[in-house]
Amino acid sequence: MTLTTYTVHFHPGDIVVQVPGGVTLSEAAQLAGLDLNQPCGGQGRCGRCAVIVDDPAARDASGPRSAVRRRSTIRLSPEAVAAGYALACQTVVEGDAWVTVPAQQAIERRLTTQKAAARVEAPFDYDPRRHQPIQRYYLRLDPPDLADQTDDWSRVTRALATHGVANPEVSLPLLRDMPRVLRALFSDGKDEAEPAEDQAPDISAAGAFRWHDTTEPWQVTAVVSLDAWDRPQGPPQLLALLPGDHTARNLGAAVDIGTTTITVWLVDLESGEVVAQASDYNGQIARGEDVISRIIYARKPARLIELQELVVGTINRLLQAACQKVGADPQEVFKVTVAGNPTMIHLFLAIPPESIRLEPFIPVVNYAPTVRAGELGLAVNPQAVVDCLPGVASYVGADISAGVLSARMDEAPELTLFIDVGTNGETVLGNADWLITCACSAGPAFEGAGVEHGMRATTGAIEEVWINHETLEPTYRVIGPPGEKPRGICGSGLLSLLAEMLVAGVVDKAGNLRKASASGKDGAPPRNREGQHGPEYVIAWGAETADGRDISITEVDIDNLMRAKAAIYAGFTVMAQSVGVDLADVSHMLIGGSFGQHINVEKAVQIGLLPDLPAPAHEAASEGGDASPWDRFKFLGNTAIRGAYMALLHRDVRAHLNDIARKMTYLELSANNTFYDAFMSAMFLPHTDLGQFPTVKAALKR
Amino acid sequence: MTLTTYTVHFHPGDIVVQVPGGVTLSEAAQLAGLDLNQPCGGQGRCGRCAVIVDDPAARDASGPRSAVRRRSTIRLSPEAVAAGYALACQTVVEGDAWVTVPAQQAIERRLTTQKAAARVEAPFDYDPRRHQPIQRYYLRLDPPDLADQTDDWSRVTRALATHGVANPEVSLPLLRDMPRVLRALFSDGKDEAEPAEDQAPDISAAGAFRWHDTTEPWQVTAVVSLDAWDRPQGPPQLLALLPGDHTARNLGAAVDIGTTTITVWLVDLESGEVVAQASDYNGQIARGEDVISRIIYARKPARLIELQELVVGTINRLLQAACQKVGADPQEVFKVTVAGNPTMIHLFLAIPPESIRLEPFIPVVNYAPTVRAGELGLAVNPQAVVDCLPGVASYVGADISAGVLSARMDEAPELTLFIDVGTNGETVLGNADWLITCACSAGPAFEGAGVEHGMRATTGAIEEVWINHETLEPTYRVIGPPGEKPRGICGSGLLSLLAEMLVAGVVDKAGNLRKASASGKDGAPPRNREGQHGPEYVIAWGAETADGRDISITEVDIDNLMRAKAAIYAGFTVMAQSVGVDLADVSHMLIGGSFGQHINVEKAVQIGLLPDLPAPAHEAASEGGDASPWDRFKFLGNTAIRGAYMALLHRDVRAHLNDIARKMTYLELSANNTFYDAFMSAMFLPHTDLGQFPTVKAALKR
Repeated sequence: MTLTTYTVHFHPGDIVVQVPGGVTLSEAAQLAGLDLNQPCGGQGRCGRCAVIVDDPAARDASGPRSAVRRRSTIRLSPEAVAAGYALACQTVVEGDAWVTVPAQQAIERRLTTQKAAARVEAPFDYDPRRHQPIQRYYLRLDPPDLADQTDDWSRVTRALATHGVANPEVSLPLLRDMPRVLRALFSDGKDEAEPAEDQAPDISAAGAFRWHDTTEPWQVTAVVSLDAWDRPQGPPQLLALLPGDHTARNLGAAVDIGTTTITVWLVDLESGEVVAQASDYNGQIARGEDVISRIIYARKPARLIELQELVVGTINRLLQAACQKVGADPQEVFKVTVAGNPTMIHLFLAIPPESIRLEPFIPVVNYAPTVRAGELGLAVNPQAVVDCLPGVASYVGADISAGVLSARMDEAPELTLFIDVGTNGETVLGNADWLITCACSAGPAFEGAGVEHGMRATTGAIEEVWINHETLEPTYRVIGPPGEKPRGICGSGLLSLLAEMLVAGVVDKAGNLRKASASGKDGAPPRNREGQHGPEYVIAWGAETADGRDISITEVDIDNLMRAKAAIYAGFTVMAQSVGVDLADVSHMLIGGSFGQHINVEKAVQIGLLPDLPAPAHEAASEGGDASPWDRFKFLGNTAIRGAYMALLHRDVRAHLNDIARKMTYLELSANNTFYDAFMSAMFLPHTDLGQFPTVKAALKR
Repeated sequence: MTLTTYTVHFHPGDIVVQVPGGVTLSEAAQLAGLDLNQPCGGQGRCGRCAVIVDDPAARDASGPRSAVRRRSTIRLSPEAVAAGYALACQTVVEGDAWVTVPAQQAIERRLTTQKAAARVEAPFDYDPRRHQPIQRYYLRLDPPDLADQTDDWSRVTRALATHGVANPEVSLPLLRDMPRVLRALFSDGKDEAEPAEDQAPDISAAGAFRWHDTTEPWQVTAVVSLDAWDRPQGPPQLLALLPGDHTARNLGAAVDIGTTTITVWLVDLESGEVVAQASDYNGQIARGEDVISRIIYARKPARLIELQELVVGTINRLLQAACQKVGADPQEVFKVTVAGNPTMIHLFLAIPPESIRLEPFIPVVNYAPTVRAGELGLAVNPQAVVDCLPGVASYVGADISAGVLSARMDEAPELTLFIDVGTNGETVLGNADWLITCACSAGPAFEGAGVEHGMRATTGAIEEVWINHETLEPTYRVIGPPGEKPRGICGSGLLSLLAEMLVAGVVDKAGNLRKASASGKDGAPPRNREGQHGPEYVIAWGAETADGRDISITEVDIDNLMRAKAAIYAGFTVMAQSVGVDLADVSHMLIGGSFGQHINVEKAVQIGLLPDLPAPAHEAASEGGDASPWDRFKFLGNTAIRGAYMALLHRDVRAHLNDIARKMTYLELSANNTFYDAFMSAMFLPHTDLGQFPTVKAALKR
């Protein structure tokens, strides 16, 4: 039996995959390494896996048409279907097909770890020989004899020279292991009848490598770091000498240390692919939710060390989990690239961050030197090179440089505003000519922390809420397979909830719950009640939830969310003002941050987190009026982890990040009175000045 | 399983230790904190670790007997065993035991230090600005403010750039200290009311610097290593940032790790002067007197670490003592240059030296990378650069390259033979066109170790002996002020003594004492007698000595001295033969080694240590006949410490040493039968072939 296969083209990225007839587009996407949203588990109920077949914007209309069959379009409007939209989980491949995956459908992290990550597309043709500084070489050395008494290390360097590696540096721990590794001495003892277990020096650097009795002496794999950002012309460094041939796999890790969430991508440096992902809350969160409280906590040296160990502990768990997914040993990882805001980087390196907090707000180091993993207790190979991406100023770090990089903001002629909706609310405004940046302490509310029933966007999180304007009864969607019971509310759920509460009138503009707004209906208890922590609104009753407890939002939670959104809004408005830019002139609004990618723009505008900037009327008109009014907004996802990943792969990208960091002008808001005023004005829903929010004004009127 | 432990009592001192059954008495002694001599490395070969079990002089004979098992008593006479003697390294604990450690087995520690060393003259015009890689710069930084939020490290590098120091590297420990050092924060507490003692991070790198309340913030001294041999073009490295102005003094240390003796020179890198010297026996000597026994001892990883700690311990004591002499803190030392034979360098770096001992005799590394003092536990500044000079082959090390350098052998057109009269008897032959080298295990006899009354050339040492040919009565000269009583005999004294004994007929050509040769005269007891360790000749009676004990030389001592001289003589004769050189054609005979400089050439020739090569007749004639007949011989002194000193001062000298090491061809004697034959022929006084020693032949006739 021969199987008929068809070609499915995915846009963007020109990913092509061969599939047998009869599979769904979501299955085809999975085969292509793309991971589409399927909150409802592929039942065609949620509408979140919508893709565009034969997208006129993406391909030539005169080409062949896609041969697909839509089993159900129940979640799509007739207009959408007419425009080519289809539910990937309900659309069957019956011939070649051309499919566009809309940006907002890109995968959201639901699991703490996963093996097959969303296929991450490097924005360059990755050539591991030309771009990657970490290389492995298999060396077959001539064994020494009386006619060739060359010392061990010179013998290795002689062989490395044939690979073009000149004058490599070697560390003491590697030299201490070298005679045993070269001679494949695992259980010597034959010579002086010493106990075999005594042969392994405890000063060993080789770590947890399993040595095999079958390994031939004088045949080793050298792991070499050819260069690093802080030694671009520097001599290569030997990172390991492993017995036998270990060139098949070359692993690296990209790490984003968020104040709230840490993400690790395990990367195959040979293919450039992300082979596993893992993320979790930053273990430091219990010692302070924002950077300021952590800096204060770290003032005592013992506590600085505690915070360093907490963050390294989280990273180590994630590295271990990611490695486990692909059957790798963390000892195989020889490069780690780290993004994070300056305080996170200081704490990660155990550098006292105190001066970041005190005027005039000075980091100890923006361009941290590369260090070895062993110096930090990182559970990869102790000789692995750890590279922290550059910071810009006390409150703007490598995550932001990485965002500018991935959006190519520093190359575009038109104005772009980039907002990282994270704990620190960093924002960048500018174009190819100039870049200005600022940060504000938004707090972790939108990452689910600091909110009574907040949680990360994993299984069991309420990710979207609708409130009936008549009954004030909520309905919600939970992350996970059908029937999954809610355990809490994630950032996008909170944002959605707050916007719905405002528009439905459950909460007033000042963030106060309206006592009488949601009395029990049909005998049900009232959803507005006095809870343990003050007034609250119940979204899910205990009977519906995973642990039997009611899920609610309190006025305190609402206040936290309002502070977060007010800080971010005040930040970018004050910055735009400082350079005389009218936000209406901004061509692109980029949303970053791991939470950012799940934002419903309309709802974010409704609560006053994002500026009320619908597409200019003439543009909307020119596109026939059916384009989204929020076309100016684009989601970049977690730009920090993406930047770390790109810098991990490509030495030029790494150098480019330093250039970007140097190019940015930092606007210090901490000592800015204008900022405080703007913040206070934004402490309303959406804002004290409704004139800044025309579409919200209209919605509230309805 | 429970482990049975036994009690071992050591006398004197009533030291009691609990040990598991099966350990040796030497291991028990180590656990008890006692340091027993183990010159052979615990192989039961030397007999120097003899102790007395159930010593009747020490304990009640009616008490319980010790339960020990003697694995070997090969080095003990039956009488000694009957008297309770046992070799500690060969005696196993099988129950409680009572052990007496004889006084003579305690290790002697005779640290010598002197403040004003012999003024050491650098063989070049030393210019610290041009030649010295370690520099100090006083930086007056602009304090940061809101208009200049440059990070701390960039602020420092900006200032260093004005001194021509571009793109320096910085380590993590320095970054961790940096914010406090720059801000002169010694007892902060004003901000958050934290206890002041908590302000000093225990991850600090600054070490023991005393900080003064008067220090101004933002005024610091940067200590920088501009380059090193293994990074000639490499970026400069920041070694320290010190609060205030510390440019007045810039210290370095040159270290010679001899197998027997360690020497430290403390050097003012600004003036180039040696400001203090110190030397002592290598603390490893109790774990093996020659390199081979130390390599065997180091086979167990824990013992490798023990040997590393022993040598570092000795160096640290010497550094401390040398610094004390000039009122300096070892923390002020930022560069250490180390010479030593390859085994000593391997042990110093804790690199397993095993492959040096086993055919084909391969060192792990000849050109060791520079490391930081903190990696080795060296008690200078932990960031100090430690530079081990290059080795040539398994048994020829940096000390020899240094000798070639200081004698300019690699530049001279005429033939030179350079002999290092040390434990390893390294020899180099050649000229500007070629250099050949070899080494032989001579043992430490000429350094006063392994000889009953041997000692180092310090106060109280007999340094020269004359024996009356008629009465056979000796007279001697003692190092020290007039009237200084002798405590032992140093290397030159032993050499002088042996030559006199031969010429006077006290000893025969085979090294046996002539029983009847020195009967007591005028009623004095006979100087030739049967001593505790066999036949001996008494040089000084107890009444003349410092401690009241007779000073004598035994036949065993003579045998050790003959082995040493025979090995050295065989080494250079076999090497000359291998390249077809007649020793008579050698223009310069250079004697190195710390002992070498005190040799009386005529006497060294008489015992057959040096070749019988008086100045050619025509030369003696041309100089009027009154020139010394030994004009061809020159003393270089301790070339190793001198080479380390020169390399410490001058980067070009350091580079030159690598060139010399690469230029030398190594002749492996360990696997050479000719060498063994030559050695056996040289095991006579002066030699079996008297034809090779015409002047000695004539002297013996007289």
